[in-house]
Amino acid sequence: MSAAPISFAAHPGSYRHWRLDVDGAVATLTLDVDPDGGVAPGYELKKNSYDLGVYIELNDAVQRLRFTYPQARAVIVTSALNRMFCAGANIGMLAQAEHSFKVNFCKFCNETLAAIEDAGQSGQVYIAAVNGTAAGGGYELALACERILLADDGSSTVSLPEVPLLGVLPGTGGLTRLTDKRGVRRDLADVFATTAEGVRGQRAVDWRLVDVIARPTEFDAAVRRLAEEVTRARGPGPAAGASDLAGIELTPLSCYATEDSIRYEHVRVDLDRRAATATLTIAGPAEPVSLAGLHAAGAGAWPLAAAREMDDAISRLRFGEPELGTWLLKTAGDPAAVLATDEMLLAGAAAGDWLAGQVTGLWKRTLRRLEATSRSLIALIEPGSCFAGTLLELALAADRQYMLDGVFDDGPGDQEPAALTVGRMNAGPLPAASGATRLAIRFGASTVGSGGSPPRASAGGSGGSPPRASTAQLDAALDAAGKPLAAADAVGLGLVTAAPDDLDWDDEIRLVVAERAGFSPDALSGLEASLRFAGPESTETKILGRLSAWQNWIFLRPNASGPRGALRRYGTGQRADFDRKRV
Amino acid sequence: MSAAPISFAAHPGSYRHWRLDVDGAVATLTLDVDPDGGVAPGYELKKNSYDLGVYIELNDAVQRLRFTYPQARAVIVTSALNRMFCAGANIGMLAQAEHSFKVNFCKFCNETLAAIEDAGQSGQVYIAAVNGTAAGGGYELALACERILLADDGSSTVSLPEVPLLGVLPGTGGLTRLTDKRGVRRDLADVFATTAEGVRGQRAVDWRLVDVIARPTEFDAAVRRLAEEVTRARGPGPAAGASDLAGIELTPLSCYATEDSIRYEHVRVDLDRRAATATLTIAGPAEPVSLAGLHAAGAGAWPLAAAREMDDAISRLRFGEPELGTWLLKTAGDPAAVLATDEMLLAGAAAGDWLAGQVTGLWKRTLRRLEATSRSLIALIEPGSCFAGTLLELALAADRQYMLDGVFDDGPGDQEPAALTVGRMNAGPLPAASGATRLAIRFGASTVGSGGSPPRASAGGSGGSPPRASTAQLDAALDAAGKPLAAADAVGLGLVTAAPDDLDWDDEIRLVVAERAGFSPDALSGLEASLRFAGPESTETKILGRLSAWQNWIFLRPNASGPRGALRRYGTGQRADFDRKRV
Repeated sequence: MSAAPISFAAHPGSYRHWRLDVDGAVATLTLDVDPDGGVAPGYELKKNSYDLGVYIELNDAVQRLRFTYPQARAVIVTSALNRMFCAGANIGMLAQAEHSFKVNFCKFCNETLAAIEDAGQSGQVYIAAVNGTAAGGGYELALACERILLADDGSSTVSLPEVPLLGVLPGTGGLTRLTDKRGVRRDLADVFATTAEGVRGQRAVDWRLVDVIARPTEFDAAVRRLAEEVTRARGPGPAAGASDLAGIELTPLSCYATEDSIRYEHVRVDLDRRAATATLTIAGPAEPVSLAGLHAAGAGAWPLAAAREMDDAISRLRFGEPELGTWLLKTAGDPAAVLATDEMLLAGAAAGDWLAGQVTGLWKRTLRRLEATSRSLIALIEPGSCFAGTLLELALAADRQYMLDGVFDDGPGDQEPAALTVGRMNAGPLPAASGATRLAIRFGASTVGSGGSPPRASAGGSGGSPPRASTAQLDAALDAAGKPLAAADAVGLGLVTAAPDDLDWDDEIRLVVAERAGFSPDALSGLEASLRFAGPESTETKILGRLSAWQNWIFLRPNASGPRGALRRYGTGQRADFDRKRV
Repeated sequence: MSAAPISFAAHPGSYRHWRLDVDGAVATLTLDVDPDGGVAPGYELKKNSYDLGVYIELNDAVQRLRFTYPQARAVIVTSALNRMFCAGANIGMLAQAEHSFKVNFCKFCNETLAAIEDAGQSGQVYIAAVNGTAAGGGYELALACERILLADDGSSTVSLPEVPLLGVLPGTGGLTRLTDKRGVRRDLADVFATTAEGVRGQRAVDWRLVDVIARPTEFDAAVRRLAEEVTRARGPGPAAGASDLAGIELTPLSCYATEDSIRYEHVRVDLDRRAATATLTIAGPAEPVSLAGLHAAGAGAWPLAAAREMDDAISRLRFGEPELGTWLLKTAGDPAAVLATDEMLLAGAAAGDWLAGQVTGLWKRTLRRLEATSRSLIALIEPGSCFAGTLLELALAADRQYMLDGVFDDGPGDQEPAALTVGRMNAGPLPAASGATRLAIRFGASTVGSGGSPPRASAGGSGGSPPRASTAQLDAALDAAGKPLAAADAVGLGLVTAAPDDLDWDDEIRLVVAERAGFSPDALSGLEASLRFAGPESTETKILGRLSAWQNWIFLRPNASGPRGALRRYGTGQRADFDRKRV
């Protein structure tokens, strides 16, 4: 792949692969991939096959629909081609891509599909109008939509041909969504995922692969009917007054990148190639943001701008700086202003203000993107920081939290000791991918089933065994909401990993960073993914955590990516040459 | 590794690595690994490190304790060495092992640890008396126990040094059990799993890594106290009368293996190397087994013997026949006798008969072992088969179920058409690893959270969308319990994948087998693992499904297994040479 930095910015006015049309309550996203528009040379995007660039535009469209077109209740995803909805990820691109690019490409696609599903929560329901064949990732895009309508034209099929044709798995959640979202019987899912030519017509309905089929002459009417049903079923919008639904324009982020830094308005990234770290610093709001101010400033308002900048920084670093294995997370600003802005968002969302809800939702997804990132995340809580409420979630998403006990001796004279503050945003509105809050996961207060095993043996408590992690610690942390917590209190409540004082701080952080840089990056990725997805599971964690791990493994095996593997031989006319051994 | 076939048979009288002592309600398993007793040449099992052979004996001991020593309520696991409990899996063995062996070795260890946890359900609680350092797999063994007591001698630690020392993950569930079973905070788990020297003393208690610490002079008394508490807390045994607790001897399985078959008394395996299949046929009981007959015949009674044979066959095929990628599952016998035996086991277990409960539990674990096997599983339901109740679970565990519609034209004249029968064993007593029944998973009647996404959009049902998979199909299947179902009924109830008639049967099965043999074995492993673990999750599925997938991936990466990888360089004095790129 080309090493040129990838930009995650896009705008409907300059999409190369999508067309976005909004007509009142119904929006339409039409896929029309420019075969010559790949982000890297060496492959042609035929048959609406996609690469990262197509998904960067889709990601932009999904986000823009939420902020710029809040009146849209139904979003129809369809294709401009004749009898071809989408052929999935481009094989030439996959065959030539490095392993780390493939993994990050799949992850970005998965996150975009999760955002499509998440949009339903804000009343924007996606409908796949599959007006031609949907293969592999093309069908997985449809699976992320809440409804799937398939053209009944005798030729259009849905399929997951990855196993039979490419020797890999459907890489973007298809298998999990078949069984867990759509309720496809697992033996039929097995037949389907090993049938290269796919399934069409009534059988696709019978197997639950699609919801409805329609003949070509009736297709458009059926799509309209489905969209009308969806919009009707949703009732009036989140805010009844039409004027309240005036969307806001997502203006381009201002971003200035040098060799060793990326600077946005509220987010700064400092790159230290020697130490193999990136330091991400988010500045809090200069003053509390009001609901009126949020609507007036739109994309310029702090909570929206900071989330968009953070989101962009994560994607840029994932793809562009794979050797910076540790991210240090910092904040700077006034915790009270963060908490006041949080309260504004919570009150606004509770009162049905659509924008307050969308901004909170964007933070939720950005925090999940952070947590799904294969880098060690270390939060540094220092004097002058504002780890409170929404920004405290950054620390809770991290693998470890280090907090300075007191002030820096050589810092400014008016330093307040480092503090952090739990807020209402930590109690529910920003759940991790499993649906549980990060605090609940941290304290083991959200459980996973034991598969028929009994609860832990309890011998009456007299054996000196500590009580099982429970809601007690969670309750204690939530009870402290609103109070700035000094290091000793934060340690006592279990909110930070360690709290060195000024004497030890530099050495301790240097040691942690150096240690991390010395470990196997693969082992760290597995370790972090396992611990971050502690506790309960959801479709999203199953896709990001488990299905992706299998895909990583399979991508790496010679049977897929070796010179005689299925991925490399696809389209050459030669059959793959498999090592038949099962593990 | 040596290609000599591995035997999974063991007996306390000839253990090389364990000592099993039973003293009334307290049993003790003492680890004392013979350094020269490895199952393959080329490594020395120093410091109570283990290889597959050590776990084969442990697996035998766990099973034997349940059947031969039902009076044992507490099982103490400890070490015969001075200041060394167990150093974990032997690194020399891992470094020289093939990838497929490593994966299967970890899986067998994981299943043994799951059996230890499962034993608690039958009232046999494991206590780890960690009288020395427990490193890596050694600590993971302790984590599978319900209580962990650590010697507070100033030197004994618990540790998971895999990430810092070996560049791999703890391979047998350690990370998942830390957070999800013991409630260790995930940032502390991160520190712990990256600290090669481990944690000892009070800190180990504070972090929930162990339950209790005790000084060497008080250690034995503390162990005894814990064991007494456990046995007291359990109250009187599952059956009050001591005579009812007369254990049964697990006699050696009779097994006759040739180049192309393995024959037990009730299970026969036919190997077809050309088609790359193994056909496993289980014969049902010749007549219904009574509870008295079960106790009298002991290991010779059908339900126990057949389960043990099946279990042994699975392990032998996993390790010994990696290129036979498809297993065809058949049964032969009288379905009524299977169902009557099921009823005896259910009534016995309900009345508190310990042996009836243990036999059911062994079937549960054997079915889970089958389902965790990386082979395509195809059930063939033919005339003369007895897929009913417990044996129907074999079919439900399979990836697909093919059922002959009617009889074979060239079969015997008195054939009854193929039939299958749902029984009470399919409604709960034999749950899959997630804790849900296979029927509930099949029909999507056991759900997984959506991570904060809303339930599927419902537009009033007028959009032609089929109803969401629900309990309706499950209820219909359970309502048919006890009735022999012909192919058409089985298809209608969604219990089989397809039902070809005599004309098509041979061609269809041949095609399925040939198709399977042509696919990438890796992609099939990922596909099957994903679909078999549809629905809810448990600690066991997280370990077998997700953690294992990460471990597979990491084992394969050059950073671990390459010539300059951490696993290969361990102990050479040379540091591993890592590709620093993060995925």
